[in-house]
Amino acid sequence: MTGALGIWVDGARTSQVPADDRGLHYGDGLFETVIVRRRVPRFLDAHLARLAQGCARLGIAGDFLAGLRDEIRDIVADAPDPAVLKILVTRGSATRRGYAPLGDERPRRILSLWPGSAPSASWADGVELVVANARLADNPGLAGLKHLSRLENVMATREAEQAGAFDALMLHASGHVISGAMSNVFAWSRGKLRTPRVDRAGVAGILRSVLLREAPALGLVALECELTLAELIHSDEVFITNVRIGVVPVRRVGEHRFPMNAIAQRLASHIGGLDA
Amino acid sequence: MTGALGIWVDGARTSQVPADDRGLHYGDGLFETVIVRRRVPRFLDAHLARLAQGCARLGIAGDFLAGLRDEIRDIVADAPDPAVLKILVTRGSATRRGYAPLGDERPRRILSLWPGSAPSASWADGVELVVANARLADNPGLAGLKHLSRLENVMATREAEQAGAFDALMLHASGHVISGAMSNVFAWSRGKLRTPRVDRAGVAGILRSVLLREAPALGLVALECELTLAELIHSDEVFITNVRIGVVPVRRVGEHRFPMNAIAQRLASHIGGLDA
Repeated sequence: MTGALGIWVDGARTSQVPADDRGLHYGDGLFETVIVRRRVPRFLDAHLARLAQGCARLGIAGDFLAGLRDEIRDIVADAPDPAVLKILVTRGSATRRGYAPLGDERPRRILSLWPGSAPSASWADGVELVVANARLADNPGLAGLKHLSRLENVMATREAEQAGAFDALMLHASGHVISGAMSNVFAWSRGKLRTPRVDRAGVAGILRSVLLREAPALGLVALECELTLAELIHSDEVFITNVRIGVVPVRRVGEHRFPMNAIAQRLASHIGGLDA
Repeated sequence: MTGALGIWVDGARTSQVPADDRGLHYGDGLFETVIVRRRVPRFLDAHLARLAQGCARLGIAGDFLAGLRDEIRDIVADAPDPAVLKILVTRGSATRRGYAPLGDERPRRILSLWPGSAPSASWADGVELVVANARLADNPGLAGLKHLSRLENVMATREAEQAGAFDALMLHASGHVISGAMSNVFAWSRGKLRTPRVDRAGVAGILRSVLLREAPALGLVALECELTLAELIHSDEVFITNVRIGVVPVRRVGEHRFPMNAIAQRLASHIGGLDA
């Protein structure tokens, strides 16, 4: 990634990792992308909580988590505004060949700091989505986690780019909508805000959680539920979210157009005003 | 991986890779595990063909493939017998942040040589499988490829180990059997050998291809088809395959026992006798 301001592997400044890392060999690890505004990492508690939950579910020893907050504070002390902090954690170097971990691996953390960029003004008018060809796996054991095995997402974002779209909607094997390839998705209809459950597939996005938490403060009813593609398409308003892009209205999914973006604008404004 | 005899990154002997590699960040790459017998890589044409096909499907530039055979010849020249050569190819260092590749990445190849080991004599009596809880994604775009996003397999092999089993059977979202977490699977019944199709999920294993090719020479009819768990369980004989373990009879899947292993033995003996 051309342009990193710094990379720290297990606390040491370097640009290399051991070639036997299980993150590289098997996508065996987790990551968080944290937005840093005025040298303050936004939603850091939520990021660290998701990382801790991921470690517990993958069976990665979480001892390193205790010192992570101090390490992050030191790294962001000189960060430009805005900046992006990527926290990548792997199960560590393999202690034998093969998929199955031996259980004695020492987790490795790779922190990197990047210059950030403000959301593009053009997004406010709404972006276009395509529906990805590939379906997401039904995998309750991995669902919700931001793990490193993301080739499905890579291929879906490639599909979106080739179609000139901003992101690709990803469906579960059942046909239900789960998320964008790099975002979560919300639909507004009949006076309620709905976002797909992420307990069978998908990522429990940090901004998604923040919106579910903050919606009542704006007088909005927000629900996690199953959402078919037809339900999404017949909604009054659709928007996508992640911590980097914020709340971005969707103007079009395939041939279906969404003229409204009032709810997205209200939420974007509210989120932008939150501390940290 | 404790015990590597050597690691070569883009031809240079080293033990490190750049921390911005997309293989590490997104599981964006491919690998091959090649068995080296008496300094000859077995089934090398088939491995290189699968790797080339994977590069084409992922949109990874395949120029490096032309020189790979020479590089491998040099590496295995001093290999112990048996040895294992791992060929790992990633899309290369990220040229921007985010899932979508920019298209100008330079692929990175990471070759490593390991001491091999003979298959365990105890496997000849048959091994036990469990059925993994997680289902495999329906993903025709990635199906068949041996890509780096293997956390599903990591978690399934972990499940197998915790149950004291040798491997875990993985099912497709539809409920059909696809493979073991680290192997392909064959079922013998009504005079025919069946192995699940791998065009929606799973890996097109090299030994699987060799068996499909060689079966007629032994007078066996071998088919790729859809295979339900019930069909597998009611087969006369079940075995699993990969280039490292060879052809290994399955004694038990959950509560279902398979007393026969004659077909597995015939195939194992035939495969062992092939050149290279």
